[in-house]
Amino acid sequence: MSDAIGNVVSDAILDQVAFDASGLVAAIAQQHDSGEVLMLAWMNRAALAETLSTGQACYYSRSRQRLWRKGERSGQTQRLVELRLDCDRDAVLLLVDQTGVACHTGRRSCFHQAVRDDGLVAISDPEVDPDHLYGA
Amino acid sequence: MSDAIGNVVSDAILDQVAFDASGLVAAIAQQHDSGEVLMLAWMNRAALAETLSTGQACYYSRSRQRLWRKGERSGQTQRLVELRLDCDRDAVLLLVDQTGVACHTGRRSCFHQAVRDDGLVAISDPEVDPDHLYGA
Repeated sequence: MSDAIGNVVSDAILDQVAFDASGLVAAIAQQHDSGEVLMLAWMNRAALAETLSTGQACYYSRSRQRLWRKGERSGQTQRLVELRLDCDRDAVLLLVDQTGVACHTGRRSCFHQAVRDDGLVAISDPEVDPDHLYGA
Repeated sequence: MSDAIGNVVSDAILDQVAFDASGLVAAIAQQHDSGEVLMLAWMNRAALAETLSTGQACYYSRSRQRLWRKGERSGQTQRLVELRLDCDRDAVLLLVDQTGVACHTGRRSCFHQAVRDDGLVAISDPEVDPDHLYGA
């Protein structure tokens, strides 16, 4: 974990992020050691500030229009290892340590459909029963 | 390269992508062997179709409002190895083989700024002089 994580986040850092007209930036979560891309979500300023200050990934749910503390229901949390911005500062890359699975389908990564000749093909199987994740 | 790449792309695949109200999806480019996340850009339906049919990454430039054939000026092209969609089908992951550098600053990855105690810190150096990439 970098020294900057877990401390109060200065406005100076947040002010440098180029949030879009909706106040959001795209955020990629990548498993820090394997390099696997786990998911793409969105952050507003509050989500980014919370992620940096707590060291746990917090996104902004566009469908629910509120902060989404990753794993709050499923327990499948993401511990932040490092946070990077791209050259335009309008995209975020989170290097995380994923507990369990990132995807609500029970698969490790959300990117589990590949384009093949016969269309979209699932390239991984669920590791966890989604009913167990969300208490159906 | 998967069998689906380099052939005419069926509308059946493109119809399954959840483009947003602006007709775009976020697209992550990842180096296929090292796992390095290179950049995040956007694709419209035409860009996605061209990427699949040519096997070379083509994005949609929101600033220029036209197709952006990656490397068309700089020569820093991205050969497509595999294309994946996420569970909601509103984000694309391209596994690519990057020629040279992905970033217009001459760095390998666009995600070259990390949050540290003293703010944003560049964590990689340019490998190529940007003036050489764009013929300044």
